[in-house]
Amino acid sequence: MKVLWNDQIVAREAVKLDIEDRGYQFGDGLYEAVRVYKGDMFMFDEHFDRLERCAKKIRLTLPFTRIELQTQLYRLISAEQISNGAVYFQVTRGIDSPRDHRIPDFSAVKPVVTGNVSAYERPQAMQQDGLSATVIPDERWLHCDIKSLSLLGNVLSLDAAMQKGYGDALLVRDGYFTEASASNLWFVFGDTYYTHPDGNLVLPGVTKLHLLNLMRQNGLKIKEEAVPAEKLATADEIFISNSIWEVVPIVNVDGNPVGAGKIGPLTKLIQDKYIASTKSKLG
Amino acid sequence: MKVLWNDQIVAREAVKLDIEDRGYQFGDGLYEAVRVYKGDMFMFDEHFDRLERCAKKIRLTLPFTRIELQTQLYRLISAEQISNGAVYFQVTRGIDSPRDHRIPDFSAVKPVVTGNVSAYERPQAMQQDGLSATVIPDERWLHCDIKSLSLLGNVLSLDAAMQKGYGDALLVRDGYFTEASASNLWFVFGDTYYTHPDGNLVLPGVTKLHLLNLMRQNGLKIKEEAVPAEKLATADEIFISNSIWEVVPIVNVDGNPVGAGKIGPLTKLIQDKYIASTKSKLG
Repeated sequence: MKVLWNDQIVAREAVKLDIEDRGYQFGDGLYEAVRVYKGDMFMFDEHFDRLERCAKKIRLTLPFTRIELQTQLYRLISAEQISNGAVYFQVTRGIDSPRDHRIPDFSAVKPVVTGNVSAYERPQAMQQDGLSATVIPDERWLHCDIKSLSLLGNVLSLDAAMQKGYGDALLVRDGYFTEASASNLWFVFGDTYYTHPDGNLVLPGVTKLHLLNLMRQNGLKIKEEAVPAEKLATADEIFISNSIWEVVPIVNVDGNPVGAGKIGPLTKLIQDKYIASTKSKLG
Repeated sequence: MKVLWNDQIVAREAVKLDIEDRGYQFGDGLYEAVRVYKGDMFMFDEHFDRLERCAKKIRLTLPFTRIELQTQLYRLISAEQISNGAVYFQVTRGIDSPRDHRIPDFSAVKPVVTGNVSAYERPQAMQQDGLSATVIPDERWLHCDIKSLSLLGNVLSLDAAMQKGYGDALLVRDGYFTEASASNLWFVFGDTYYTHPDGNLVLPGVTKLHLLNLMRQNGLKIKEEAVPAEKLATADEIFISNSIWEVVPIVNVDGNPVGAGKIGPLTKLIQDKYIASTKSKLG
């Protein structure tokens, strides 16, 4: 298996990571996961834009340009002969010895880049049948807009849901739904789609951004407003979105069916439009 | 340089870490830093106790017993011929491929252990002269009792302070001081030491625990109560504690001297008692 390691495509076994890589010791780094359709990365530019914004927020100097990274990722996709799949890559602050919480200067410590690509087909059964979920307190940090490697809060949120027998967690902070454990979260009330506005409490999802554009283009009603937890029982539909799974309905929350307990019409509508867009618009 | 890698002591260059180690991709793991005095680990048992408690909280099965880890760390200290120093070790959830937020079963994925030891002498100048600090909002997650590798929140807190020209961050959440960026935080008002009670907002520091015991043994007054942010200006003394630095005064906050602007008598008293205890009590 070939992987990306800094500016090279190498055999996975050839990668040398150090025990004092700040990604390994502090979760000090950023990542992106990009969907690949028919060998093309979907919305690469939007992923790269977000990476650049996040890098500024944590004072990390990216060690590549947009075109350099894009070129290397396409080399990787080609080397692995991936048609439909997902690219994952991350950038850590680099190897900093001795370990020190202080952010080292970029002139002294260079970021470490790793990435891999894997085959992945559209999860049609999950997209049709949906997932169950449970409501979990959102106990993550207050920079959820940063797509960082410090993900233990997300991991534990999902685990809390799974330990209770559910497929995902719908996170609630201060009485309002924020997102799911690793996806943006959407509600439908009547003829209107609701999702949490961007800000420090949710990830500005690339898929969310694209869904909002598709909704606008199709004259659908949107409110970028946080949904209060107590409105859960009256939601007509709920779904989640992320780059890998696209649009997945939540059909049951804490044992209670959402709407009719199956994918709802507005979820299906936007799911179809999203899928159609992946066949025409290549990022 | 020799390091710990799982159950072996090996040359640092021999360690093979995988790009899909969950420590590297999710900050999914735990760590401890243990002070070494004259070749002996100080309060190793208390560090191990905390590691065990944290492991339960994140459903991580430790791949070693107390005595196995202790033995390996002493082998490492001996191999590196360290007299005064610090041992760092971490345990990640292990290599989980393909990447997946879900916590894998211990039967399928084994944790990865790494650690190293370095020489370190008591930072006498910092212990005498102290540090400046600034007040920073505590925007970390709500499981600060877990000594996890997802540390970007701590890193950014310290960085925010340093970018403003200060040596550390005094973190405030909901109007109360919690801790410093990587240390427990103490105030002195009159004849009483104040520190935030244990719970989900602060790390239950091994040094904090030992200081509380020393204070009790010496008949000193303690209140384990959170200090309101607005009481900052009336604090007689402020100090921080951690296993590596022991007790370090904060002599200046946001440009204003704390008390007389130098190490205060109650800080000096407990700092001396702590140092004395390291010469007699070996964990």
